[in-house]
Amino acid sequence: MDLISIDSLSDGQIASLIERARHHFAGNRAGRSSQALDGKILFNLFYENSTRTLMSFATAAHRLGMAVVTLPVEASSVKKGETLEDTARTLNAMRPDALVIRHSENGSAAAVALIMDAHVINAGDGTNEHPTQALLDAAALVERLGSLDGVKVAICGDIKHSRVARSNAKLLPRLGAEVRLAGPPELLPDGVIPLSVDEAISGADVVMMLRVQRERLDNELGDAPGEYLGQYGLTAERLASAAPDAWVMHPGPMNRGVEIDGAIADDPKRSLIALQVEMGVAMRMACLELVAGGKD
Amino acid sequence: MDLISIDSLSDGQIASLIERARHHFAGNRAGRSSQALDGKILFNLFYENSTRTLMSFATAAHRLGMAVVTLPVEASSVKKGETLEDTARTLNAMRPDALVIRHSENGSAAAVALIMDAHVINAGDGTNEHPTQALLDAAALVERLGSLDGVKVAICGDIKHSRVARSNAKLLPRLGAEVRLAGPPELLPDGVIPLSVDEAISGADVVMMLRVQRERLDNELGDAPGEYLGQYGLTAERLASAAPDAWVMHPGPMNRGVEIDGAIADDPKRSLIALQVEMGVAMRMACLELVAGGKD
Amino acid sequence: MDLISIDSLSDGQIASLIERARHHFAGNRAGRSSQALDGKILFNLFYENSTRTLMSFATAAHRLGMAVVTLPVEASSVKKGETLEDTARTLNAMRPDALVIRHSENGSAAAVALIMDAHVINAGDGTNEHPTQALLDAAALVERLGSLDGVKVAICGDIKHSRVARSNAKLLPRLGAEVRLAGPPELLPDGVIPLSVDEAISGADVVMMLRVQRERLDNELGDAPGEYLGQYGLTAERLASAAPDAWVMHPGPMNRGVEIDGAIADDPKRSLIALQVEMGVAMRMACLELVAGGKD
Repeated sequence: MDLISIDSLSDGQIASLIERARHHFAGNRAGRSSQALDGKILFNLFYENSTRTLMSFATAAHRLGMAVVTLPVEASSVKKGETLEDTARTLNAMRPDALVIRHSENGSAAAVALIMDAHVINAGDGTNEHPTQALLDAAALVERLGSLDGVKVAICGDIKHSRVARSNAKLLPRLGAEVRLAGPPELLPDGVIPLSVDEAISGADVVMMLRVQRERLDNELGDAPGEYLGQYGLTAERLASAAPDAWVMHPGPMNRGVEIDGAIADDPKRSLIALQVEMGVAMRMACLELVAGGKD
Repeated sequence: MDLISIDSLSDGQIASLIERARHHFAGNRAGRSSQALDGKILFNLFYENSTRTLMSFATAAHRLGMAVVTLPVEASSVKKGETLEDTARTLNAMRPDALVIRHSENGSAAAVALIMDAHVINAGDGTNEHPTQALLDAAALVERLGSLDGVKVAICGDIKHSRVARSNAKLLPRLGAEVRLAGPPELLPDGVIPLSVDEAISGADVVMMLRVQRERLDNELGDAPGEYLGQYGLTAERLASAAPDAWVMHPGPMNRGVEIDGAIADDPKRSLIALQVEMGVAMRMACLELVAGGKD
Repeated sequence: MDLISIDSLSDGQIASLIERARHHFAGNRAGRSSQALDGKILFNLFYENSTRTLMSFATAAHRLGMAVVTLPVEASSVKKGETLEDTARTLNAMRPDALVIRHSENGSAAAVALIMDAHVINAGDGTNEHPTQALLDAAALVERLGSLDGVKVAICGDIKHSRVARSNAKLLPRLGAEVRLAGPPELLPDGVIPLSVDEAISGADVVMMLRVQRERLDNELGDAPGEYLGQYGLTAERLASAAPDAWVMHPGPMNRGVEIDGAIADDPKRSLIALQVEMGVAMRMACLELVAGGKD
C-alpha cells in the first residue's frame, strides 16, 4: 500500500500507526533494535532540500534493518530532462521494496505511486500534503497528552503554502481535536475563515507555528526586521493567552525571532520540538512497517 | 579482476555473466536475497550525472549484502585540484573490495584499474565503453529471444559519442548478432559505413535507439522541434519496416519525441526498456560476483 | 565520550587508540571483519569538501558493522538558514550513536558536542583541530619506526591555517617527538619562532608537508609557477639534507609540484602517504570503538 494522503488512511490504520510509533519511540530510547525489514531496500528520493525528513527516513529504515539508496537529485537524470514519470518507471524496474519521495509539485507522489509496484510514501508534495509529519505530530501529542479528544490546536503562519498545515488539518480533527488556522491574511488559503493569530492562540492547548519562508517576507509581506514576530509570531505575551501549560510545536527548520521567539522554542516545559523529531523516526518506522509489511 | 572493456572478457565469462544475470533476475522477482558478498565494501565513484547506473549498482551491491560508500563527487577533492590518479591511490589505500567508476575521460577506468588493488568496474568512460550496459542489453535479449544467433540489431543515433553503442558493437556480434550502426552523418564515427536510419531499421529484429544530447541538437544539427524525430528518430512508420514484432530498446534517459516516439517506448508488446533496467540490477550483481568473488 | 581535541585525550587513551588502530590495520590487511558496532548508526556531517576523511569514516564504520547516514550538506536545511545549533538539536533527537562533523568554523565540533547526547568526533573545525588526522599520523609513524621517542618531525607549509599542524603539534610531543614548524613567514601563526623550511628539514627524521591552498598562492604569496616549490616545497635537494632514509608525509590532497615534488610522493622507500590513508581507516575504527563503545 502507499501513503500519499491522510485521506487514504482508515481510522484503524491511523490508530495503529500511532500505537506502533509510540512502541518504537520507547524501543529506540531503550536501545532496542529491530531487523523486521532486514534485506529490504528503500529508495530515498528527495527533489527538495531536506535535512530532517531525509535523515529521519534513512534512520528509521536502518533501525528496521533496511538498506537505503539515496538518489542524489542534484546529480541525477533530472538534469538531463527526464520526466518524473520516466524516472519512476526506471526506479520501479529496479524493484525496491519502498520509495520515499519529496517533490515540489502537488500530486507528484500520487503520480509516482500509480507507476510503482513498490510502496510509496509521500514525504511532501508541493503545497499539498506531508502526511508523515502530521502523523508524527499526532503521535507526539498523544505521547504527551494521552488523547487528542477536545484538544484545541492553533496552527499559525503561512497556511496557504503549508503541506504540514494541510495534513494536520485533515488528521487532527479525526482524532477529536479542534484545529484553528491563522496567519497573515495574504497567507491564508481561500475558504478558510480569517482568524487572527491572537484569536487562534487564545485558550489553545497546543500552538503549532509554521516556518515562514524569508522570500515571502521580503516580497509579499514587506516585512521589516522583527515585524513578523510582533504581528504574527509566537511571543511570550501571545503564549500567555493560551491555556496554562500549553504545548508549543514547530515542524522545523525554525526562523528564530521570526515566527517564534527562540526562548520559547528552547523551553523544555513548553516546547515539543525535539519530541517531534524523535517521534519522527519512530513514526517513519511505523509507516515503513505498514507499507512494506512485516511487524516484529 | 577488472571489468573495463568488452575486449577483456572471454567468451566463457560472457556466457557465464549472462547466465548468472538471468539467475539473479529470476531471484529478484521471487524476492530471494543473497548475502554472497556480505561484509564486503563497494566504492561508487560517479564523476558524471547518473540516476540509473548509480542506483543500479548500489541496489545490486545491497542485494548481495555489500556495504556501499558513494563518493559525492560534487563535494570531493576533485574540487581541490587532485588528479584522478591521486584520488585512486587514496581510495586504494582504504582497501575497498570493488570500485565502480564513471568518468568523462576515455581511458579513465583503465587508468584507475592500473592503480587499484580492488576490482574496478567501468560504468562508462567518456565516449569509449560502458561494458555493463552492453552485457545487460545482451542478457535482456537472451531473456526474450532465447539466443542472439542471427538476430539483426539496429543501433541508431549519436553513434560517434556513444559508449553504449561502442560496447554493444563489440559484444553483440560475439554472441552471433548482426549489428547495424546508423544515425545523422555528423554523428557517425570515422570508419563506419554510412547507413541511413531507414536502411538500418528495415528488417531489424531489434531497434536500439540512443539518447541524443540536446546540446548537440542545437549546435551541430540545427534541429527544429520534431525535426530529429522525423529524420532520425523511431516513429511508428519506421518501426513498421522492421521485422514483425521487432523489439525496441533504449539505454535511457529518453528524450520522448526526439529520438523515440513516446508511445512506442510505452508499448509493453514492443518495448524492452523496463526489462533493460531490471536486468541491469541482475547483471551488476553478476559482475560484482565475478570481480569480487564469491558466488552463492 | 567525544573526540574534539587532542587535549581531551589522556596519555592512556592515546596509547590505546594507537594500539587498536594497528590491530585493525593488520586485521583489514588480513581481510578480517568486525561486527563490534553492528546495528549502531553513524551520522556523517560534512560542511566542507572532503574525499578522504568522509570516505575513511564511512569505510571504518562499515568495517565495524555500523550503518552510515550521510547528511548531504548541499541539500540540507543549512540552505534554509537553520543555525548549526538547531541542526545539532534536530539530529540529536534522532538518537544516532555517533556523529562525525567537519565544519569551517573553529569550535563548531565542540559546540555540537555540547548539544548532542551521541558521541561526537571532530573531523576538522576551521583552522583549529583535526585530531583523528594527528592520531593516524602518529600511528603510521609508530607502525614504521616502532616509537616516536626522540624522532624529529618537520611540519612545513601553511602552519597558520592548518588544523593538521595544530593537532600534530599537540600530539607528537606527548609521544616523545620533537616537532619543528616552518613555512612562508606570512603563513606562520603568532608565537611560533620563525624557522625556515631548510632549517626545519635539516636532520629531520620525518618531513610532513602541508597542502597549500592555491587561493593563498595567488593572493597572499604572489606565487609564480614553481616558485613555491623552490622556496618552501619539498624537493630532492631539500630532502637530501634530512636524516638518511627520512620519511615523507602529506595529509592530502596534494598539489604536485607545489608543496611537494611528485617523484618524492611516489617513492615507496620514502613516502608514507598511502600508509597514512590506510592507517586512517584503522584509526577511525579505533576512534569509533572508543567513543561508541564495544571492542571486539
